[in-house]
Amino acid sequence: MAALLDELRQALGGEVLSVEAAILDRHARDATGIAPHRPLAVLRPRNTGEVSTALRICNSHRQPVVPQGGLTGLAGGATPRGGEVVLSLERMRGIEELDPAAATMTVLAGTPLETLQAAASQAGFLLGLDLGARGSCQIGGNLSTNAGGMKVIRYGMAREQVLGLEAVLADGTVVNALNKMLKNNAGYDVKHLFIGSEGTLGIVTRAVLRLHPKPRSSVTALVATGRYEQVVQLLRSAQAEFGGVSAFEAMWQDYYRFVTGADPSRIPPLPATSPFYVALEFAGNDAEGDPDRFEAFLGRALEQGLVSDAVIAKSEREARAIWEIREGVGAWNTRHNGLHLDVSLPIASIGDFTERVRARLQQRWPGSLNTFYGHIGDSNLHLSLDMGSDEEHVRHAVELCVYEVVRDMGGSVSAEHGIGTLKRDYLGFSRSEAVVGLMRTVKAALDPNDILNPGKVL
Amino acid sequence: MAALLDELRQALGGEVLSVEAAILDRHARDATGIAPHRPLAVLRPRNTGEVSTALRICNSHRQPVVPQGGLTGLAGGATPRGGEVVLSLERMRGIEELDPAAATMTVLAGTPLETLQAAASQAGFLLGLDLGARGSCQIGGNLSTNAGGMKVIRYGMAREQVLGLEAVLADGTVVNALNKMLKNNAGYDVKHLFIGSEGTLGIVTRAVLRLHPKPRSSVTALVATGRYEQVVQLLRSAQAEFGGVSAFEAMWQDYYRFVTGADPSRIPPLPATSPFYVALEFAGNDAEGDPDRFEAFLGRALEQGLVSDAVIAKSEREARAIWEIREGVGAWNTRHNGLHLDVSLPIASIGDFTERVRARLQQRWPGSLNTFYGHIGDSNLHLSLDMGSDEEHVRHAVELCVYEVVRDMGGSVSAEHGIGTLKRDYLGFSRSEAVVGLMRTVKAALDPNDILNPGKVL
Repeated sequence: MAALLDELRQALGGEVLSVEAAILDRHARDATGIAPHRPLAVLRPRNTGEVSTALRICNSHRQPVVPQGGLTGLAGGATPRGGEVVLSLERMRGIEELDPAAATMTVLAGTPLETLQAAASQAGFLLGLDLGARGSCQIGGNLSTNAGGMKVIRYGMAREQVLGLEAVLADGTVVNALNKMLKNNAGYDVKHLFIGSEGTLGIVTRAVLRLHPKPRSSVTALVATGRYEQVVQLLRSAQAEFGGVSAFEAMWQDYYRFVTGADPSRIPPLPATSPFYVALEFAGNDAEGDPDRFEAFLGRALEQGLVSDAVIAKSEREARAIWEIREGVGAWNTRHNGLHLDVSLPIASIGDFTERVRARLQQRWPGSLNTFYGHIGDSNLHLSLDMGSDEEHVRHAVELCVYEVVRDMGGSVSAEHGIGTLKRDYLGFSRSEAVVGLMRTVKAALDPNDILNPGKVL
Repeated sequence: MAALLDELRQALGGEVLSVEAAILDRHARDATGIAPHRPLAVLRPRNTGEVSTALRICNSHRQPVVPQGGLTGLAGGATPRGGEVVLSLERMRGIEELDPAAATMTVLAGTPLETLQAAASQAGFLLGLDLGARGSCQIGGNLSTNAGGMKVIRYGMAREQVLGLEAVLADGTVVNALNKMLKNNAGYDVKHLFIGSEGTLGIVTRAVLRLHPKPRSSVTALVATGRYEQVVQLLRSAQAEFGGVSAFEAMWQDYYRFVTGADPSRIPPLPATSPFYVALEFAGNDAEGDPDRFEAFLGRALEQGLVSDAVIAKSEREARAIWEIREGVGAWNTRHNGLHLDVSLPIASIGDFTERVRARLQQRWPGSLNTFYGHIGDSNLHLSLDMGSDEEHVRHAVELCVYEVVRDMGGSVSAEHGIGTLKRDYLGFSRSEAVVGLMRTVKAALDPNDILNPGKVL
């Protein structure tokens, strides 16, 4: 181990290699918070060449490496498990180029998402990726985990924002697959190996992101419906009428009640008596005509009985009040034993899924609080649960209880958070043996010494 | 060889295995037409199990296999090179499910694209993939080659239409990665291995395609501009104003003159005196308001001098007349020695690229006809060239002449047609050594005996 650190120090210098306790502690965990482990050292390379040198040396010593971005992950993917060196991309930040003709931005992996959003906006474009952690998460982490978030229904996952990237393999080989073209069928599209593989196949160092035109209108509404089928009908008819549905967030009654009841001084936009609520945003290009068309659409939905009640935000403040309900789960952790799950299911099945899961949970933990909400337009459901305990064995029992239903209904145990270590035991619930076998084949081919984020995903 | 055919016949039956000359000849080439080779046999499995059995047996005999779809490819990817068995997916056709709630369609690989488009349309959706060969190409081939075509600017390449797929590996392992969710981060997204790898890593047998809402309005225009920079400005401002630009096809003067001059009995929509022409389509959701907004947009573009002339199609017939110009290259092959190239470049560079290429070609082949046109919004340029000869050595010299400029300007030698055998020598022009090395690593890991479409891509 001393030999390894000596070699790294000699090759990279004391500025890149840190073994100070305060720095090691800062890199001992991600946002999951569970089971932190102090790494042997923290490497903070300043450029791709240094990432390559670091990996080449670690690989020759069979030294495991945990790549880290902004440490905002929720599956333990960036948390050391003991004995690793951390490689943090935090010093590789910046925008190398914004090409307005190509509508692309070439960026370093350690750049915070929010910085990229602001630069895109200033150039008159929109970056189609947004999530709560935007201020601290880094684009390299977003790509390595194929982040989801708020804009997926309109612009797709993080993967869909990438035209090209540069990554470093376990042996230090720099794979330059930067590319500014929307079309490039020159052989295998190797960038997809590194997107969503959580740093187990390579470390993303640079990326070319595509940019979108900025919408010119935005309308937000909150509607109430009586049945889950109506939620789905509303989704499809809103998309058919507008094309530009930019958010479609469903909330089950328990969730709506919990959030709107959290602050008795505030009157909720709609009474908490309906089985379902949907926060709906439409972003279009006709600032004058869009609000009227949207209102007419909701009027028809009310007439047809598709929705039972609706309120359109008349101001920025009213729109914010609607989004605060959807994002109100933040209040949860201050009042409850937080257990938050992220799953996906075929959209038609989500209503049944919640009923089956609720029944199972209530049978085993009578009186537990089980709330459901999520990006239904993306097939993504979140569960916030309180069993009256946050002990490890309860968490596991609840996960099993929920993920068994996910498995039976053909869903995924991870919609947008990834597998990391937290969901590793459940990977087989959503992926066939052949698929997991194929993942192992690819992992063994690209990282034969298993030094890149070992024990994550697989 | 007799032992192999015996084993295949025994396992699959004479209905699946053919050695009749007429059938062998039908499968000896794809649409490229060059260097046909009669395969040893043609396998036409009826289901995934038979594909698996066929590959398992071929793999155990180290027998090379060429997968074939509708044989419409333009890079030789489906043409046998001699000594192979062909595996055609033509009997695996049909739509297993159309799920309107999920907005997905689960389909067998051998289904013609046009069949899928019609089924999507009948259910009120749109399939975001369209190309000239729609009547005979098969979705499995479209995915294996990551087909592009007419709708890429709005809906992306074939890859972007896929939520899940089933593929069979070289050893017969069935990889079931079918998935109906927009979000699924449960480990590596293995479907991307099989999309765009031209049948060299596995054979696609089924797919889940995502569907889009159908647009409700459509406006087509032809405009003329003086400089390439204005073409790009028009693209970006049209996207910013409408979001829903569904086609943006630029034509250089030589191309426009060639096509509109082909039929002297027809008056072109605009005189052939401008340096550039753009056929522009906008598909939106406001059937009443969109045409007026589009006309107002073009009015402003004329006032600002961004375009010098413009005509909006007032009828279906007028729209068709505009698209016939863009698609008029069909007339080429009846009048010229056809040499058609498909490249992509960063959008800002395409104007310079055409000037450099034209100068090079004219220097070497004075008086040759060099025309340019393409899906500029997708960074994709097509070249139709006539050097007065279609001899092999001339074709090679022209390719080198063009692809050297592509390489120098950071472009791709294949935008949408793939590599196959035709562009294999030029793969390194657009992909770094490390990227090609990574492709080889993946190929060796998934197909260690190199039986799947050997000699294609790599």
